[in-house]
Amino acid sequence: MNAPKYVYDFAEGNKDMVDLLGGKGANLAEMTNIGLPVPPGFTITTEACRTYLDSGRRPEGLDAEIATHLEALEQRMGKRLGDADDPLLVSVRSGAAFSMPGMMETVLNVGLNDASVQGLAAQSGNSRFAWDSYRRLLQMFGKTVLGIHGEPFEEALDKRKDDKGVTLDTELDAADLEALVGDFKEIVRADSGRGFPQEPREQLDLAIEAVFGSWNADRAVLYRRQERIPTDLGTAVNICSMVFGNVGDDSGTGVCFTRDPASGAQGIYGDYLSNAQGEDVVAGIRNTLPLADLEQLDKKSYDELLDIIARLERHYLDLCDIEFTIERGKLWMLQTRVGKRTPGAAFVVATQFLDEGLIDADEALRRVTGAQLAQLMFPRFVADTDRAFVTKAIGASPGAASGQVVFDSARAAEWEAEGRDVILVRRETNPDDLPGMIAARGVLTSRGGKTSHAAVVARGMGKTCVCGAEQLQVDVEARRATGPGGVTFVEGDVVSIDGTTGEVFAGEVPVEPSQVVQYFEGEIAADDPDVDDLVRAVHRLVGHADTRARLGVHTNADNPEDCGRARRFGATGVGLCRTEHMFLGDRRRHIEELILADGDEQRDRALEALRQPQRDDFEQILETMDGLPVTIRLIDPPLHEFLPDYTDLSVEVALAEERGEDAGRARELLAAVHRLHEQNPMLGLRGVRLGLVIDGLFEMQVRAIAEASAALKSRGKDPRPEVMVPLVGAVQELELARDHIAGVLNDVSTATGVDVHCPIGTMIELPRAALTAGEIAKAADFFSFGTNDLTQMTWGFSRDDVEAAFFSTYLEHGIFGVSPFETIDALGVGALVQMATDSGRATNPDLTLGICGEHGGDPASVHFFHQVGLTYVSCSPFRVPVARLEAGRAAVL
Amino acid sequence: MNAPKYVYDFAEGNKDMVDLLGGKGANLAEMTNIGLPVPPGFTITTEACRTYLDSGRRPEGLDAEIATHLEALEQRMGKRLGDADDPLLVSVRSGAAFSMPGMMETVLNVGLNDASVQGLAAQSGNSRFAWDSYRRLLQMFGKTVLGIHGEPFEEALDKRKDDKGVTLDTELDAADLEALVGDFKEIVRADSGRGFPQEPREQLDLAIEAVFGSWNADRAVLYRRQERIPTDLGTAVNICSMVFGNVGDDSGTGVCFTRDPASGAQGIYGDYLSNAQGEDVVAGIRNTLPLADLEQLDKKSYDELLDIIARLERHYLDLCDIEFTIERGKLWMLQTRVGKRTPGAAFVVATQFLDEGLIDADEALRRVTGAQLAQLMFPRFVADTDRAFVTKAIGASPGAASGQVVFDSARAAEWEAEGRDVILVRRETNPDDLPGMIAARGVLTSRGGKTSHAAVVARGMGKTCVCGAEQLQVDVEARRATGPGGVTFVEGDVVSIDGTTGEVFAGEVPVEPSQVVQYFEGEIAADDPDVDDLVRAVHRLVGHADTRARLGVHTNADNPEDCGRARRFGATGVGLCRTEHMFLGDRRRHIEELILADGDEQRDRALEALRQPQRDDFEQILETMDGLPVTIRLIDPPLHEFLPDYTDLSVEVALAEERGEDAGRARELLAAVHRLHEQNPMLGLRGVRLGLVIDGLFEMQVRAIAEASAALKSRGKDPRPEVMVPLVGAVQELELARDHIAGVLNDVSTATGVDVHCPIGTMIELPRAALTAGEIAKAADFFSFGTNDLTQMTWGFSRDDVEAAFFSTYLEHGIFGVSPFETIDALGVGALVQMATDSGRATNPDLTLGICGEHGGDPASVHFFHQVGLTYVSCSPFRVPVARLEAGRAAVL
Repeated sequence: MNAPKYVYDFAEGNKDMVDLLGGKGANLAEMTNIGLPVPPGFTITTEACRTYLDSGRRPEGLDAEIATHLEALEQRMGKRLGDADDPLLVSVRSGAAFSMPGMMETVLNVGLNDASVQGLAAQSGNSRFAWDSYRRLLQMFGKTVLGIHGEPFEEALDKRKDDKGVTLDTELDAADLEALVGDFKEIVRADSGRGFPQEPREQLDLAIEAVFGSWNADRAVLYRRQERIPTDLGTAVNICSMVFGNVGDDSGTGVCFTRDPASGAQGIYGDYLSNAQGEDVVAGIRNTLPLADLEQLDKKSYDELLDIIARLERHYLDLCDIEFTIERGKLWMLQTRVGKRTPGAAFVVATQFLDEGLIDADEALRRVTGAQLAQLMFPRFVADTDRAFVTKAIGASPGAASGQVVFDSARAAEWEAEGRDVILVRRETNPDDLPGMIAARGVLTSRGGKTSHAAVVARGMGKTCVCGAEQLQVDVEARRATGPGGVTFVEGDVVSIDGTTGEVFAGEVPVEPSQVVQYFEGEIAADDPDVDDLVRAVHRLVGHADTRARLGVHTNADNPEDCGRARRFGATGVGLCRTEHMFLGDRRRHIEELILADGDEQRDRALEALRQPQRDDFEQILETMDGLPVTIRLIDPPLHEFLPDYTDLSVEVALAEERGEDAGRARELLAAVHRLHEQNPMLGLRGVRLGLVIDGLFEMQVRAIAEASAALKSRGKDPRPEVMVPLVGAVQELELARDHIAGVLNDVSTATGVDVHCPIGTMIELPRAALTAGEIAKAADFFSFGTNDLTQMTWGFSRDDVEAAFFSTYLEHGIFGVSPFETIDALGVGALVQMATDSGRATNPDLTLGICGEHGGDPASVHFFHQVGLTYVSCSPFRVPVARLEAGRAAVL
Repeated sequence: MNAPKYVYDFAEGNKDMVDLLGGKGANLAEMTNIGLPVPPGFTITTEACRTYLDSGRRPEGLDAEIATHLEALEQRMGKRLGDADDPLLVSVRSGAAFSMPGMMETVLNVGLNDASVQGLAAQSGNSRFAWDSYRRLLQMFGKTVLGIHGEPFEEALDKRKDDKGVTLDTELDAADLEALVGDFKEIVRADSGRGFPQEPREQLDLAIEAVFGSWNADRAVLYRRQERIPTDLGTAVNICSMVFGNVGDDSGTGVCFTRDPASGAQGIYGDYLSNAQGEDVVAGIRNTLPLADLEQLDKKSYDELLDIIARLERHYLDLCDIEFTIERGKLWMLQTRVGKRTPGAAFVVATQFLDEGLIDADEALRRVTGAQLAQLMFPRFVADTDRAFVTKAIGASPGAASGQVVFDSARAAEWEAEGRDVILVRRETNPDDLPGMIAARGVLTSRGGKTSHAAVVARGMGKTCVCGAEQLQVDVEARRATGPGGVTFVEGDVVSIDGTTGEVFAGEVPVEPSQVVQYFEGEIAADDPDVDDLVRAVHRLVGHADTRARLGVHTNADNPEDCGRARRFGATGVGLCRTEHMFLGDRRRHIEELILADGDEQRDRALEALRQPQRDDFEQILETMDGLPVTIRLIDPPLHEFLPDYTDLSVEVALAEERGEDAGRARELLAAVHRLHEQNPMLGLRGVRLGLVIDGLFEMQVRAIAEASAALKSRGKDPRPEVMVPLVGAVQELELARDHIAGVLNDVSTATGVDVHCPIGTMIELPRAALTAGEIAKAADFFSFGTNDLTQMTWGFSRDDVEAAFFSTYLEHGIFGVSPFETIDALGVGALVQMATDSGRATNPDLTLGICGEHGGDPASVHFFHQVGLTYVSCSPFRVPVARLEAGRAAVL
């Protein structure tokens, strides 16, 4: 076998070689090859990294390849690495196929040593610059290559400034920095037990190995575990000749976007800082200039940059993000990549490129995501309103909320009950805070990140949340929170939080609904000339998605209002109409009668009392969805859920007896609750089990459906109910239930003279249902995957019990990359869905297959269900546009 | 395609053609072919039945084939079917491959009509016999072929007897029976709207179609659903020329076994009734004679019968069950089959045939079952003790029990707490009776069968139960049960029940342990000359099973006593050592301390207090199992299980407050219980989740194990612990837990200087674990399938909640043939076990695979696990011999 090629000159690669050269390397090569002024350099492949990590040493042949490429680079630049008189300096940067926090990123100025620093000073005519470059190398090399803690370096720097009585780094002169270099070399020697390597090639090799090794840094490993990125990809290493923007006023550095990444508006957006290096821009020490000002400073470079920007957009056919440096009037491109943008800009930019004829509609669709659309559908603060900014923390769950500060769960619930809007403010939350989180408009914590308890639970609830506002001192005992600059909130003060940006404001900021939602609601029209570009873009791209989608989008809704909204939002059916709520309120007492019934007659009376109002419910829903399928799930929860809580009732009866009072009906009810009490109600007498054990229960519901259907048909309507049996685990259950259902449909058809026969199907929500789906499909007209329960049963945890108890720990440990209730667990639960789909279709080719768990509105899950080959996904009304968009995207990816 | 052959003469078939000819037909053919005197006849195949059921009509060509075979039969018998002068009569019987209740079984005397009855009378010289035969045909044909209710026939018969003032059928003379035939014909006409078909061939065809159709009778369908017999097999139909044992004193009928089916003792066991037909023997109208008496009555037939018996045993190489009839001194064989026998007889007979050199040891092993061995291990009533027999009902759960009668659950629990033995007597039981069932030695009900609530729950508990004692009037209000003959039990009276036979006795019957158990315990030796044949037989066959078994047998035991017993019973390891009990009793308060701990120090102190005693527990267990593997499962249940009940505590605190008392610690505990309260504890914070969330918990247990191991090794012992992590659903969980465990093992090895490293593995008890087993196996040295939890999660029901609530309904409806907690659900749960075994071995060929759910001791399940290819099964100590036997049988089947 020939030794692989481990090193590629920038001129040898291209943008499609991301796997081998990493994202950064591939883009540097691409720019080089289209003739842009990129400082010369080369990339060491991810394969070299993998071999290094496997064997623990640099792969055979690598050193020689580096030497060859380095020599070519030196010849080209007319300088030698670390040459004492005129040194070539290089940067060493990691660059994996996926960007990944926690990896070593950059060592600049490799090649400097005690001798070449003098040469650099001489050549640049700027000894302060030379010594500053050297001390930066020592600091970066010490920290990232030698693993020395950063503090001693910072302390030494501070000490030099203190000694001199100055506060800014820039106030140190060449002599100060030369002395600081001495300090830093001491720190290196003290910590690593040897001097800073003076040999340039040794510096280079050590930096390369450090980049290789950082692939396995703890944070990188954790990140990969969370994001399910394979652990064996490795990173590439980019060696690039240094150019300097800080060698005079004819030099500088900048970053820019080819369009506005916030709004998508066309034009050039960027910042420029003269006589500076990239890290100075990031550090924000001096104010940057708008990029347009460069025209005055250096017209030649400016024009060249504009030309390059135009070329890059045409080349990448997308909004690009660019880093550049001007060294003594010469423009150098340091990096480019497809630029990050706001959700709104993503839609606008995609339609712009489409209008410009640069991409087709499918490509435009690929460039927006359901997650972005979802962001656009949250309420937000009214633009251009006054805001008293307090701090910016982590936007953990999107949306915007204003309300009175409360510091504990009980108060939150109490105030909410009084009709007040509250924001729960805590250091961090734990399961005891759940009632408060439910009561609050939003949640604000001073500790914890995106995987903290507060963040995870709030996202699960769809509740606005800002986390980790570390500048806020929360003193729950004193019922006070103190922010930067002495801003203080006492309980009852109003605070406003933006869960998208992480911003916190004092006082009320008015919240406005999303224009995108108003569009979907039909309140504003896309062809209205006054409407935002954004609304037009959403209209076009969601519309195009509909033409591509192979998956239908239904909704989970159980009342006419939700059905109506979902229909306006584009749902083409109801995938899950729960019937539990039809047993609440006044009707709850009929369930009590049913449970307490002594004999068939009392039972039938209770059932009859439940049937009448349900028929009206069904009639309204079916009329709202006229002409579209409505999948009605027969009653699912255990009956004791309709009775008072066992513990509450026990206490009530015990207290009544203690007081010598007659506990009366409570006592009678307690006996029933005791009889029906279950250790694990989720695993109890529910779903089809209930239907088979309690005579007449399912039949009552089916009769209500059938009668509603008959009434509508008599009025010339087109009701399309489908009857769904929940919690089937064995085909025998469905066969029996089907017999009962078909019997009622026959009866009502005969009695009314209207044919009310309709499809009969089942939820697939138990692992056993999925495993035996081939059999079950023989008795079913349709399957609907109940991925909420299926996830609970497959993992063996109940969302209510465990999400708050340990999901944050699990996310931190990387056991989950994302909650399996948010995105379908493709490996486990998804395998069951695939299995059931395949075996169900095999025995019943006419089977309709849907999914009605909350995953139906999750973008990643929608793609999974597309691949599995389902007929439709069903989600909450607000998620319908997201699902439509993703269904289309899944078809064009 | 040639038309299939639908009809086989008895001479054309053999005993291996069961699928085509049914069991009865195949054996009639076999006897015919070995030259035994079988009345000539022919069999219509199951294939003809299938075609009939598919098309709704008799298959083409069948009628002609029947005509041909009938003609041949007529020629051979010298009579024509239904001939007016000398009629050939035939019986028509169903005969499927599996015997199946609910199918139409028999129509005798087909061929009789108004004319041929006269011919039969003339030929037999017995007109009473002829008219009686005709009225039997009318009655059987009316009921089973025409579907007329049986009552009108019974009423007409009773009326004739009343009119004549007699009570027995036999007191009716020929004229009476002739009149009765007229009555019966009227009943047929009134009900079916047409007269009884006089045409013999029409009678025959209708009877054949009725047998075909009875394949789909409700009870047969239900039975097949329960027993998972395929629905499309169909039944054969046997047409056999009639012979009569009731035509004089030189005639008779009998049944016999070739050995004693009760004890297995050699010799001839049977009954004979002269001048009678088979149904008279069954009806028990007259007392039968011992078969030996036939020698005096008809030496020629007797000798011929003895000869046939010997030939049949040699031919079938097994104990046979025979039906015969003697017609005017001519012996006819009507049926034979391998005979049913008691469990003890099964073992004894199998070893007899082995000793006689007729079968080999593998065949002997095939002839006994684990279910039989289990029966032999229950306590039973001491033989030959006086018993006051009360009634015989359904033996629903085996064993024998004596105790005082109680009529409700509360009283049962109360008396049991006082140390009394009680038998719970109810009309039927429901979930409210659970505490009483737990408290009682046995359960007796007056209603319900083998699938009733009482039966299902008692079997689940391993509690003796007799069901459906319908002769017992249970009056719970009066606290009295009245039996036949006025026997009365009031509360406190002693009753004895035999759950194997279903017998109920008044007063105490002494219960003795099983001799088989005493043998396994080593209390009696198999080579003791005084020992029963049975013990010797068990010794030999279980011993032979061990030599054949591919599956090992481990035990589920968590204390030294159980470990010791299991080792004596032949277990070669502990497959599941639970550690939960190690947190009970006095140690419970340390768990409370752990939960209430404020800070690391308090937590560590609580953990330390738990570690010390656990180390002692492990040391004892590992010493008892010296040299054998002991798989120790780290703590599994949620911590709140160790705290007081939430409802009880709530009531206690509410009452204390009501009384103005200080609830003190109860209040503090309530807060903790409230915090830890879970809606569905089975789906909560337990198993590995607990281990990853509570720092130090798993480590504490592993340290106790490692220290116990080190101590034993220092004493020259050979402890073999294996650490098992419960409830893993994702490989990441196991990887993290494994890191913690390995860390502790390293620490203890270093600290003690003894290498205590040991295998680390996981339970596979969540569907997701099974689905992702290929990944999990990379981090596991072994898997142990927890099929209890796996069954609960896969079906989505909790045994505690649903077994009592609806399993009896499900068994009655045939949704289960058997509880999935009793026998592994091969289709659902079993599919996961197979999947996980295959994918686990694929990624880790060294993986050890066991199963430690209760299925490990269930015969059918053991066979399944053998086929799946597991390494061992683990079961409760008492089930170890059953599992050993079945592991051997699985290997030779």
